Amino acid sequence: MTDGAEGLFITLEGGEGAGKSTQVARLKALIEKRGHKCIATREPGGAPGAEMIRKLLVEGPAERWDGVTEALLHFAARREHLRTTVLPALAAGTWVVSDRFADSTMAYQGYGHGIDRAMLGELYDIAVGDFRPDLTLILDLPVETGLKRAAERRGNETRYESLPREFHERVRQGFLDIAEADPARCTVIDATAGIDDIARAIEAALDRHLEA
Amino acid sequence: MTDGAEGLFITLEGGEGAGKSTQVARLKALIEKRGHKCIATREPGGAPGAEMIRKLLVEGPAERWDGVTEALLHFAARREHLRTTVLPALAAGTWVVSDRFADSTMAYQGYGHGIDRAMLGELYDIAVGDFRPDLTLILDLPVETGLKRAAERRGNETRYESLPREFHERVRQGFLDIAEADPARCTVIDATAGIDDIARAIEAALDRHLEA
Ligand SMILES: Nc1ncnc2c1ncn2[C@@H]1O[C@H](COP(=O)(O)OP(=O)(O)O)[C@@H](O)[C@H]1O
Ligand SMILES: Nc1ncnc2c1ncn2[C@@H]1O[C@H](COP(=O)(O)OP(=O)(O)O)[C@@H](O)[C@H]1O
Ligand SMILES: [Mg+2]
Ligand SMILES: [Mg+2]
Repeated sequence: MTDGAEGLFITLEGGEGAGKSTQVARLKALIEKRGHKCIATREPGGAPGAEMIRKLLVEGPAERWDGVTEALLHFAARREHLRTTVLPALAAGTWVVSDRFADSTMAYQGYGHGIDRAMLGELYDIAVGDFRPDLTLILDLPVETGLKRAAERRGNETRYESLPREFHERVRQGFLDIAEADPARCTVIDATAGIDDIARAIEAALDRHLEA
Repeated sequence: MTDGAEGLFITLEGGEGAGKSTQVARLKALIEKRGHKCIATREPGGAPGAEMIRKLLVEGPAERWDGVTEALLHFAARREHLRTTVLPALAAGTWVVSDRFADSTMAYQGYGHGIDRAMLGELYDIAVGDFRPDLTLILDLPVETGLKRAAERRGNETRYESLPREFHERVRQGFLDIAEADPARCTVIDATAGIDDIARAIEAALDRHLEA
């Protein structure tokens, strides 16, 4: 939540291969074209300490951690990301566009792994407090399409991708539930469209937010 | 908490250089002499994933993490340690002696860094649940004596040791408060005594626990 003097905090959410990283770069360019300072960042990671935790989360076998441990690690990385990257930028008037944020923990650990959602809410309060993104864009597309896209850029960060298809279906439904429960913050974007069409839909959502 | 068929879970707590590692080895030998299987383990760490988290916690500059992030990382490592090392051993009838456990998080993050103690209790419930050590031995000695001892075995795990003396004074007082609040579980041991005397005091505390 930011007042007029601060930058806006915008998060992009969605499953594997939904086009988050692609659209983060487009959105940053748009914001800069409009005359604002802007940084693009990502979770897990986005700060030196948080990137060290990221390595523990996105590499290695899927069964390396159980869901609760995973949630603790994600919130540890998130707090570090906020403390050292996001909050100082916003305070200096720089806009921040983040590739994933807390909705991913709710979707992946809560809906995907079945971790108690009230407990994830408590962890949010402990690690993040009252702070929320100004605007969240949820890129929605069929699991199959996303995993196929993601497979084409496959590196060693495949720990989540390697989970079964039903896991990713629950994650997709989770993001849609989150959007429905918080329509003032979240906009669902059809991510099966072409890259330019998605960028235009995101721009329209941003304009609606700024006019509201 | 264990029933007759399970091993006992015993934790050693105290500040830097209190003699925890020394006495863990002595206690393990005593338990084995009495005919039980026993493993010695440590926190943060004690399991492959937890040791990866340990590296993030005990190396690097003191200001690397803030207190809440530190607590999240400690509880992530703790859950992994319990899940993969401690609970399977206890279930198999093996006793477990751990060099530090959750009282260290309360003493270091809660008392030392001033992190909200109720919040640390919530994290305990999330990460650990109802499980508690059967017996906790708190090795107490003046901060100066402990830091001097610790300095002599100095490696690269000096992140906590490098904190100011007043921090360690608060940690010491924290352990004493914890012991006072939970006398059925905790015994304070005078750690200024010689190694053999301390080992005897620990043996006496164990016998009192077994007779109770
Ligand atoms: N709208 C789109 N249509 C088709 N392919 C896309 C689209 N957006 C992104 N891609 C491609 O799909 C792959 C995954 O996109 P990426 O932005 O990395 O997704 P994410 O960050 O959500 O996992 C990349 O190879 C990217 O070029
Ligand atoms: N009772 C004691 N008296 C004197 N020195 C001790 C005693 N117990 C341990 N030491 C020495 O003090 C140093 C720190 O002991 P250690 O067991 O590593 O403490 P901790 O694990 O609590 O940091 C070691 O060099 C150890 O040999
Ligand atoms: Mg991406
Ligand atoms: Mg030690």
